Amino acid sequence: QFLMDMIDTTTDLGKGMISMYHKYDALRFSGYIQPQFQLAEAKGIETYAAGNFGTRVNNRFLLRRGRIRVDYERYNKDDMPVIKFAFQFDGTERGVAIRDFYGRFFETKFNLFSLAAGMFARPFGYEVNLSSADRETPERGRMSQILMRTERDLGAMVSFEPRRKGHPLSFLKIDAGLFNGQGLTSTADFDSHKDFIGRIGIKPQRIKGTNYIVSGGVSVLYGGMEQFTQYINRMGTVNDKPGFVVDSAVTN
Amino acid sequence: QFLMDMIDTTTDLGKGMISMYHKYDALRFSGYIQPQFQLAEAKGIETYAAGNFGTRVNNRFLLRRGRIRVDYERYNKDDMPVIKFAFQFDGTERGVAIRDFYGRFFETKFNLFSLAAGMFARPFGYEVNLSSADRETPERGRMSQILMRTERDLGAMVSFEPRRKGHPLSFLKIDAGLFNGQGLTSTADFDSHKDFIGRIGIKPQRIKGTNYIVSGGVSVLYGGMEQFTQYINRMGTVNDKPGFVVDSAVTN
Amino acid sequence: QFLMDMIDTTTDLGKGMISMYHKYDALRFSGYIQPQFQLAEAKGIETYAAGNFGTRVNNRFLLRRGRIRVDYERYNKDDMPVIKFAFQFDGTERGVAIRDFYGRFFETKFNLFSLAAGMFARPFGYEVNLSSADRETPERGRMSQILMRTERDLGAMVSFEPRRKGHPLSFLKIDAGLFNGQGLTSTADFDSHKDFIGRIGIKPQRIKGTNYIVSGGVSVLYGGMEQFTQYINRMGTVNDKPGFVVDSAVTN
Repeated sequence: QFLMDMIDTTTDLGKGMISMYHKYDALRFSGYIQPQFQLAEAKGIETYAAGNFGTRVNNRFLLRRGRIRVDYERYNKDDMPVIKFAFQFDGTERGVAIRDFYGRFFETKFNLFSLAAGMFARPFGYEVNLSSADRETPERGRMSQILMRTERDLGAMVSFEPRRKGHPLSFLKIDAGLFNGQGLTSTADFDSHKDFIGRIGIKPQRIKGTNYIVSGGVSVLYGGMEQFTQYINRMGTVNDKPGFVVDSAVTN
Repeated sequence: QFLMDMIDTTTDLGKGMISMYHKYDALRFSGYIQPQFQLAEAKGIETYAAGNFGTRVNNRFLLRRGRIRVDYERYNKDDMPVIKFAFQFDGTERGVAIRDFYGRFFETKFNLFSLAAGMFARPFGYEVNLSSADRETPERGRMSQILMRTERDLGAMVSFEPRRKGHPLSFLKIDAGLFNGQGLTSTADFDSHKDFIGRIGIKPQRIKGTNYIVSGGVSVLYGGMEQFTQYINRMGTVNDKPGFVVDSAVTN
Repeated sequence: QFLMDMIDTTTDLGKGMISMYHKYDALRFSGYIQPQFQLAEAKGIETYAAGNFGTRVNNRFLLRRGRIRVDYERYNKDDMPVIKFAFQFDGTERGVAIRDFYGRFFETKFNLFSLAAGMFARPFGYEVNLSSADRETPERGRMSQILMRTERDLGAMVSFEPRRKGHPLSFLKIDAGLFNGQGLTSTADFDSHKDFIGRIGIKPQRIKGTNYIVSGGVSVLYGGMEQFTQYINRMGTVNDKPGFVVDSAVTN
């Protein structure tokens, strides 16, 4: 069900067309609705994920999230996953949009690697990948909301995660992917620069002889936006205080 | 599966995050498509629910409604409902939007009350709550179309409706809720004023010794739009005929 | 489940409201996701189905297609189809829209004819009706992409296709329909002119005594856009070369 080929104008490096067949035992429907009543301290305040209040509004009902999701997974005769698809829609009074829309292939020789492609959560940190159903609070922390708006991005990712029980490295999970960068905040990429995002995680491990469990991870995001003017703002010193200094060399 | 807590900027009075688990026996899919061919008496006429005709158009094919709906209900061991979710999408050539998107909790001590929250039909009158599948005509009457555009609104509602068979008040149904007011005609509330909508209904009752069945209901909508100017238009007398009189006192 | 009636302002010639009941054995879910990485020869190039590249962009991840589809079919006791519905959504980072949204009725007296109404693929040629799952390439040829953007159109179509095994005309398939013309490229029809599209097809037939299989078809599209100005451009001779000649007679 893989099609790898060239089409004229644009060269398609990695393109896959993936079909999902109906097979009820592996098809899963899930969803949740998060209705809210919000009361603000003042009219027209700015807020985060659900959008600012109207100029004259200090209280409102809203659907913060309305998610409906279809998951499809296929296993081989060793009960190892072969393929997985996720389709998630977000429907609110503000419109209908996609959230997760991706396919994932699992190699079944070593049962170690997988390749995901499409729209899915950036593999950065712990909270960004923790779904609403598992979090202690309905919203992620401010840092995640500001730096990783809507969490997902369009890209492709290779993952290392032993799937056989008792594998010596089964405590380890490594993700590394390339992403557009704009996520769901825009309908298309803004520049040719792609973001590299990677994460090495250690799954919860009990410290021998104690009841303590430790877990951890290190993430990297090497991305950015291309600049299309000759003006570069750099942090420097302005009137003896830190501030932006403009470098306007024509060669920029 | 209830999360009730405070988040910083805005105080969330009533917020619930509700998860739907897959359980096939309680999951129901339904849908319908309503394709139309319309022939107008003149080009560019104004019409109701399906939108005006284009300036040069007097006939057209359209999808009046294209609905697909997922319902999920969970019952306890007494066969009394505990929770219900509805997700309904409307897909036409004009776009994809939500229709019903709500959750409903049923208390199971008395099996009398329930609480609904999200986007659902306003509890006003008989016709507004009568779905396309049950109505005699594809469209609701003009009054419903004008006063209750798209019928649904964002809010929360408490209902009284005995669910045990043989309850002495099982002929009665009472709904009372608070709503934003804008429904699906806008993506956010316009003012801080909420609409109260309530209804007391008597279910169909046979008059003893006859074949007559009676049923009835009384509804109230106490709402409105806040006014953000100093000009108030009131019905009065203009040139000896009824008309609007403007009150422009600065104190308004 | 058929409602045929008149409503005031506009005369509804052919209107049907069709309800789909849940019946799991006849309900089918299918879907596919087509993630792509595209590398262009230059920045900002124009391209086809997936949209032009941004001014400064020569490579990008995108979801070319993200389809989820619900099909519902009902058969009578002779195993002949009675009714069929298709609901297909396309979800990408560019938005959520409908693709196929139609109902189809099969007459069960002769089991020859059927009537489809809604949004469905134009019955023109071979490739336009060949779905992504069956094509040799992810994209249709340029001609189909240019002349039949998104392939579907809003309309109604009568089809002749023998459904009983061994029918003497079972090699034949005839479709004839009327369509708006704008398909999914606009939210409403632009003019009152409807397109007639028809096709007569011969299904694959083995030539007797050989291993050759032949198949063929003839299609017609008689459509157009109404012109709302007095200027008509016609092919003629300009400076001894072919070119457009403007006819600006006021009577046009």
